[in-house]
Amino acid sequence: MPAHLPAVLAACDRNRERDRADLFRLLAQPSISTQNVGVRECAGLVEAFLDGAGLAAQIIETPGHPMVFGERSGPPGAPTLLLYGHYDVQPPDPLDAWVSPPFEPTVRDGRVYARGAGDNKGQFFAHIAALRAWVETAGQLPVSVKVLLEGEEECGSPHVDGFVAAHRELLAADLVVTADGPAHHETRPQIEYGVRGLLYVEISARGAAHDLHSGNWGGIAPNPVWALVHLLGTVLSPAGEITVEGFHDDVRPLSPAARDAIARIPLDPGAALASVGLTRYAAPEDLGHVERLVGRPTANIAGLHGGYGGEGSKTIIPAEATAKLDFRLVPDQDPDDVYAKLLAHVRRHAPDVAVRRLGAMRPSHTALDHPLAAPLRRALATGFGAEPFDVPLVGGSLPDAVWTRTLGLPSFVVPYANHDEANHAPNENLVLDRFYAGIRTTAALVAELAADGR
Amino acid sequence: MPAHLPAVLAACDRNRERDRADLFRLLAQPSISTQNVGVRECAGLVEAFLDGAGLAAQIIETPGHPMVFGERSGPPGAPTLLLYGHYDVQPPDPLDAWVSPPFEPTVRDGRVYARGAGDNKGQFFAHIAALRAWVETAGQLPVSVKVLLEGEEECGSPHVDGFVAAHRELLAADLVVTADGPAHHETRPQIEYGVRGLLYVEISARGAAHDLHSGNWGGIAPNPVWALVHLLGTVLSPAGEITVEGFHDDVRPLSPAARDAIARIPLDPGAALASVGLTRYAAPEDLGHVERLVGRPTANIAGLHGGYGGEGSKTIIPAEATAKLDFRLVPDQDPDDVYAKLLAHVRRHAPDVAVRRLGAMRPSHTALDHPLAAPLRRALATGFGAEPFDVPLVGGSLPDAVWTRTLGLPSFVVPYANHDEANHAPNENLVLDRFYAGIRTTAALVAELAADGR
Repeated sequence: MPAHLPAVLAACDRNRERDRADLFRLLAQPSISTQNVGVRECAGLVEAFLDGAGLAAQIIETPGHPMVFGERSGPPGAPTLLLYGHYDVQPPDPLDAWVSPPFEPTVRDGRVYARGAGDNKGQFFAHIAALRAWVETAGQLPVSVKVLLEGEEECGSPHVDGFVAAHRELLAADLVVTADGPAHHETRPQIEYGVRGLLYVEISARGAAHDLHSGNWGGIAPNPVWALVHLLGTVLSPAGEITVEGFHDDVRPLSPAARDAIARIPLDPGAALASVGLTRYAAPEDLGHVERLVGRPTANIAGLHGGYGGEGSKTIIPAEATAKLDFRLVPDQDPDDVYAKLLAHVRRHAPDVAVRRLGAMRPSHTALDHPLAAPLRRALATGFGAEPFDVPLVGGSLPDAVWTRTLGLPSFVVPYANHDEANHAPNENLVLDRFYAGIRTTAALVAELAADGR
Repeated sequence: MPAHLPAVLAACDRNRERDRADLFRLLAQPSISTQNVGVRECAGLVEAFLDGAGLAAQIIETPGHPMVFGERSGPPGAPTLLLYGHYDVQPPDPLDAWVSPPFEPTVRDGRVYARGAGDNKGQFFAHIAALRAWVETAGQLPVSVKVLLEGEEECGSPHVDGFVAAHRELLAADLVVTADGPAHHETRPQIEYGVRGLLYVEISARGAAHDLHSGNWGGIAPNPVWALVHLLGTVLSPAGEITVEGFHDDVRPLSPAARDAIARIPLDPGAALASVGLTRYAAPEDLGHVERLVGRPTANIAGLHGGYGGEGSKTIIPAEATAKLDFRLVPDQDPDDVYAKLLAHVRRHAPDVAVRRLGAMRPSHTALDHPLAAPLRRALATGFGAEPFDVPLVGGSLPDAVWTRTLGLPSFVVPYANHDEANHAPNENLVLDRFYAGIRTTAALVAELAADGR
């Protein structure tokens, strides 16, 4: 085991009461970015915690909510670890679905319940607690560490791209580690090597100036719902293939290493489906569970609305119809390029249909055999007491491409939170033992990177 | 001019203020059959109006909303005229699209604006006002008259078939006249010799037990909106052809007489489209305006709803989706037969999708050369001061087949309402001069039938 690490781990174990109390202070501070509730107060608190852990901390303004940044240099020539996270949280509603109030952290059955417990305060605070244990125990860090905590992740991270591009020096590092998202497995930790990107669009069709009587106008007036149905039928086939021309141009085929990693992911597909009340997969049927998330982009209708939706019958030709679609993108697709192709497709098949872009995020990708994955694997094994497995790509989106594409760095996502953390939902929670395992993991990672760098 | 008619028409003209005030009382009484709002109160009001016009009036129960029936015998041997209409109305939503509240009748530019103004209160009340003028002026009616007013037309008239079959004696007549629907022309009245039938279904697809995160589950979980989109794509082609197997089996080709009548219908197709803000037709493009309504069935999506419909973006895979479809049927299609074929089609293409039948109505057909059309033509010329034209079939549905198929009677539909009555839509209205012309028409019809019968 690397130098100092046994002593630091022992300190982590001794500090549990204090770390938990500090986490609770952080959770008690609302920081709802979409509603601008408590965000700046929370930024100040986070700055104070970074400062208390021995880092040089500062609040950096953006056009939106501020970033909180901290750094501490290690010995000359040591690698630099950049830890990314976010201190803002989702709105807590519906409030009456919470067993205990969302901003009054409460422990039940070994879990702390609070908004932000898992997403993301409990996870990034594990980093801070580990760094504090290191500095208090060893008087120094064996590598350079930077911490960037965003205040707008739950708004879709609108300013991270610009911030990172404008602060290349400040953020210079050898690797990025993000503790976010729920783990897939109860006991074994995981490393995620990329996230899917996203393109979100709204498409709208219009018919007559107002709803028409379907008897008096049926056969005469174009129906905008039919227009969307026929257009959408050209976007995804019943067989589950996206049929937008050029859509797959930049899809990177799964490498043998990725297929290998997928095969080793511990998963019971039947149980996974059953957990949400499903008995079958989306088309095509003959794909592995994980390959559906890792290997291919998706075209999803998040909503489609037009015409009468009440009880019983109403015989109208609707005047308008709107669909919201999200496309999950895989490396090396680019949302700008995909949007241009989608737009051309719509122009060709339904020139009267309007398309509006509501959001975009690039997919990210780090090679499975990147050498800096090795120290992270060892750290996770130390922290969680079980061998980690590799997930080449995860389904959800994070602004991870700012590291892999904008800065060209390897970036690893390691979820410390339990699979049932209920992020974005009522009764969000974090298993406290996983919080402590996360602290030990970050502590070990610092040591392993130092050992690795020698 | 037949006896008494000049005096009755003069009375109709003198009564305008009173007739209008009574119509407004009727319009102020909501009678939303699909929501069971005010229907019975409205039935009582209609009964009182029939009674006040000198008819023996009664409310007759059905398994749903009641019928209101009135009758008054003419001289022995005189023909019997059955007038059909409906006192229920469509739901008024969206409420905020109304310039004045839907149940506060308001006059602007010679029109009364209210839900039910044209569909159908203003039209059947013209009958009642005419009969009242006859009885008050002549002390009698020169023919026997029966009035049947239904309370469930906007629900698809689910109990009219059974009611008519069970009340053949009560409803015995020589012809049926219905004032309903919008006229096609500003000045020339029209006679309609049949109506399209209707099949209304709701189809629903289910996915997971609840909405899912489209990142974590996209590619895995079936999306019920996609299921509906793909199924609907097999029901109607982008070229506008209904592709349900066997759907067209019983479609009666247009006769030479029907094509002749169609050619004589005064119509400016461009102006008709422009009146509702359209610049082009539904596919297929190469069909005559009237032929679209008369010559072929339709498949219409009256509503389709699934997933997120609010502002901005939400990245979910919806748990469910529902579409409402109406099929307009032409002679000699039968809705039971068409439903069986649709069900088989859905079973074949999307076995997991649920289909629910919400309504059905048979198409009707009366010969263009029926002898009782002649007195009706004369009455319309008197009432509207212009020559009527013949429409072999109209697009909207009425339970007209109960007369033509169940009772074997000739049935004529004569729309008194303006073409832009906006029935089933916000700001429904009736041109008051057409209301008065309708009163004169019914008054003249009674006289012409008596003259014809001598």
